[in-house]
Amino acid sequence: MEIRSVAVGGVVIGGGTPVLIAGPCAVEDERMLREVARAAVDCGVSILRGGAFKPRTSPYSFQGLGLEGLRIMDSVRREYGIPVVSEVMSIEQIGPTLECVDMIQVGARNMHNFPLLSALGRTDRPVLLKRGFMATIEEWLMAAEYLVKEGNDRVVLCERGIRTFETWTRNTLDISAVPLGRMLGGYPVLVDPSHAAGRRDILEPLCLASLAAGADGIMVEVHPDPDKALSDGGQSLDLDGLRRLAEKLLG
Amino acid sequence: MEIRSVAVGGVVIGGGTPVLIAGPCAVEDERMLREVARAAVDCGVSILRGGAFKPRTSPYSFQGLGLEGLRIMDSVRREYGIPVVSEVMSIEQIGPTLECVDMIQVGARNMHNFPLLSALGRTDRPVLLKRGFMATIEEWLMAAEYLVKEGNDRVVLCERGIRTFETWTRNTLDISAVPLGRMLGGYPVLVDPSHAAGRRDILEPLCLASLAAGADGIMVEVHPDPDKALSDGGQSLDLDGLRRLAEKLLG
Amino acid sequence: MEIRSVAVGGVVIGGGTPVLIAGPCAVEDERMLREVARAAVDCGVSILRGGAFKPRTSPYSFQGLGLEGLRIMDSVRREYGIPVVSEVMSIEQIGPTLECVDMIQVGARNMHNFPLLSALGRTDRPVLLKRGFMATIEEWLMAAEYLVKEGNDRVVLCERGIRTFETWTRNTLDISAVPLGRMLGGYPVLVDPSHAAGRRDILEPLCLASLAAGADGIMVEVHPDPDKALSDGGQSLDLDGLRRLAEKLLG
Amino acid sequence: MEIRSVAVGGVVIGGGTPVLIAGPCAVEDERMLREVARAAVDCGVSILRGGAFKPRTSPYSFQGLGLEGLRIMDSVRREYGIPVVSEVMSIEQIGPTLECVDMIQVGARNMHNFPLLSALGRTDRPVLLKRGFMATIEEWLMAAEYLVKEGNDRVVLCERGIRTFETWTRNTLDISAVPLGRMLGGYPVLVDPSHAAGRRDILEPLCLASLAAGADGIMVEVHPDPDKALSDGGQSLDLDGLRRLAEKLLG
Repeated sequence: MEIRSVAVGGVVIGGGTPVLIAGPCAVEDERMLREVARAAVDCGVSILRGGAFKPRTSPYSFQGLGLEGLRIMDSVRREYGIPVVSEVMSIEQIGPTLECVDMIQVGARNMHNFPLLSALGRTDRPVLLKRGFMATIEEWLMAAEYLVKEGNDRVVLCERGIRTFETWTRNTLDISAVPLGRMLGGYPVLVDPSHAAGRRDILEPLCLASLAAGADGIMVEVHPDPDKALSDGGQSLDLDGLRRLAEKLLG
Repeated sequence: MEIRSVAVGGVVIGGGTPVLIAGPCAVEDERMLREVARAAVDCGVSILRGGAFKPRTSPYSFQGLGLEGLRIMDSVRREYGIPVVSEVMSIEQIGPTLECVDMIQVGARNMHNFPLLSALGRTDRPVLLKRGFMATIEEWLMAAEYLVKEGNDRVVLCERGIRTFETWTRNTLDISAVPLGRMLGGYPVLVDPSHAAGRRDILEPLCLASLAAGADGIMVEVHPDPDKALSDGGQSLDLDGLRRLAEKLLG
Repeated sequence: MEIRSVAVGGVVIGGGTPVLIAGPCAVEDERMLREVARAAVDCGVSILRGGAFKPRTSPYSFQGLGLEGLRIMDSVRREYGIPVVSEVMSIEQIGPTLECVDMIQVGARNMHNFPLLSALGRTDRPVLLKRGFMATIEEWLMAAEYLVKEGNDRVVLCERGIRTFETWTRNTLDISAVPLGRMLGGYPVLVDPSHAAGRRDILEPLCLASLAAGADGIMVEVHPDPDKALSDGGQSLDLDGLRRLAEKLLG
Repeated sequence: MEIRSVAVGGVVIGGGTPVLIAGPCAVEDERMLREVARAAVDCGVSILRGGAFKPRTSPYSFQGLGLEGLRIMDSVRREYGIPVVSEVMSIEQIGPTLECVDMIQVGARNMHNFPLLSALGRTDRPVLLKRGFMATIEEWLMAAEYLVKEGNDRVVLCERGIRTFETWTRNTLDISAVPLGRMLGGYPVLVDPSHAAGRRDILEPLCLASLAAGADGIMVEVHPDPDKALSDGGQSLDLDGLRRLAEKLLG
């Protein structure tokens, strides 16, 4: 099956050249996002990621900066000329998010949120659809179908690990989902090894494996000072780590 | 830990007497729901369930009657004097649903839909919170916390099976979630063996086991003619099956 | 399907009256096993369990007393007139074990050890076949078939939990395996909630649920001083706990 | 951690050059194994695999040729000058197998068969230790420790997929086990994508991903006529498929 490539700003995903997406789990403040953007642009990252609305297991954890986070992303993408992807968790968040970012992410916890998918299907914005951490590949492709049915076929899939009994990784990166998602769905497939593994020390081999399996790109979490991150610090690269990885993958 | 009982209409869940909730997966038309309601009331069912908004894996499957389904439930609950529980999948659906049913269900696919949970937390209506088929017990209790944080502590948990490698049942009923949800969360816990097992032939032993483990009630799917059901027929009881089960459970 | 009952010494498993099996994970010395046996007999336990050969994840953990453990079990069963069940892990261990115990256990890790099953199929001794924590119910029944094919149909199944992503219990007790193993296999099915849950505090509800689901008996781990147990202390009952449980279940 | 390389005949596993192991699931007759061996040698395969003792879920499935299968492997390895690896399932099978093959395989179902591991630890033969399909990486490394403790450190690990809820692949290839097994265990790690995926159509991307992740080699199932194979035909390559794969991986 031919892969339907998706353009995000000037960047083409699924066109044969792997893309690298990088950025912090959550946008914490403008200075921090600018620091990451500068490093990202320097080392060949194509798209910046950043979270404004954060789905957190506990209601007492940091929930993201919300609209202020969006505003920061909008400002940074203009300054650095790099497209931005960010997650929405509800239909109400779609409107303001469309004004500030180039690609909308549906997170693993919302892959089964069918009203949200349908609403995004009625926009014309590219959607990064993460696989639910307990979803079969078939259900994932069906979730994409909720977007397509409403008229939006600018879908990029993102494998981010599934739940298993293994404990040395946070989730189990299902590498088979890369060729199966591409062959049977016809969508570009990215891999997010940061969330899959939950540990930095095997990030590089997982990235290389993903590209060798045919992935159309990689998405990694980056933080200027991972130990002080408000979320997901343990799996984030620092800026030097990003440079080394980008060189290995792109260079 | 003491269990916080929850009143739904005149029915108390978590008060020491197990409740039986029954009804069709989806409301298909008024005649059918009236037929089920009559049989349910006859055999001691406390609460009627019925779906108006159906989360379906495929966008091409029957998605429920929507507002018309709600209207039917409202009409039937008045006629038979029985409280009704029904599912919402998005914030927009909460308003109309509140007018037509007595208890709101959050389905397994939306247990991680935090904006939906927060919005329901700002109502004063009892919420039936199903465990995600991919959620740990800890995450389930945290999801309940999203409701409580906003001021609504009228929470009833419902175990409905988790995903495992076993194939003879659709999901694996996690019986340990009954005592753990009650002891560690302090909420009443119901069990939905229809969705857990996905097969009628072991429904009765699973119900008996759930009550023996301390469950505060049982929720089962019923259809006047399961072979013609628009969804979930294979696991639904017919009305005779419901009568036999009710007799066994309620005595 | 009719259940094929199995006699172990004078005890019938699968005859309609649930049996209680109790004893230490590992036989640590004669004094300890006699202490457990005395309490067990006192409170109506039908069969004593005890491990001489212990399958341990690490080769550096306590591996059991071996032949000396068997000798102790033989001596204690004669003194207290109670049948004993113990595990074998290899064909060589079958001979000496047959001389000292009444029922042979195949542990979860050996459910797929087909040469061992075939060798036990050529004896006429009752076999307690634990479900592998990674085995489907179908594979478990197929493992039983290895015994039956060689001529030994004195098979009792034992559900002991399967591996899932849930972390608050060591394994997930698959309660559906009780009716399915009985209905589709025709064998008596016991439940071992100690290994399934790995925690004492929900042992009683799990036992009650198992019997309500139709289990032919319960097997629990007991130790005179669980905190000093050489293995599995955290899930073992002490002797008072055993008395309370036995009263609840048997009487 | 430095990887401890293991020599099998003249072939070094873990020395920096990836090895390719190929052969039929079961040796069915001499003509067939010779045909595979000829093709294998031609296209650069380093080690021939073949099963004489087959662990099968059902006792009524083909169980392998046993001693006759070993004799055939011995004859073929001499004729073609290629080392052979084959599985043992019990201690009794070790003796005759040692005389006929160069490397002993412990299959996924026996990874927890500790007496078997200890017995192999008392030989000096290289052991290919497959990961149990429900074993954590930690348990796998502990199983290797059973061999090392008895004096045999010629251990090669083989990842072959774990059980998850995903249904489009037979098991889920845990690609993270490659870097973790190597880094934390210090053993060479092979990948068996045939058993992991259970489907031919994604074999090539899985092989490429495995090598990119650092795997020390690949083991695939090959059959001259997969549709007529007595076992595992659906996942086996034919001889042309093997040639194409070998060219891609080695060439």
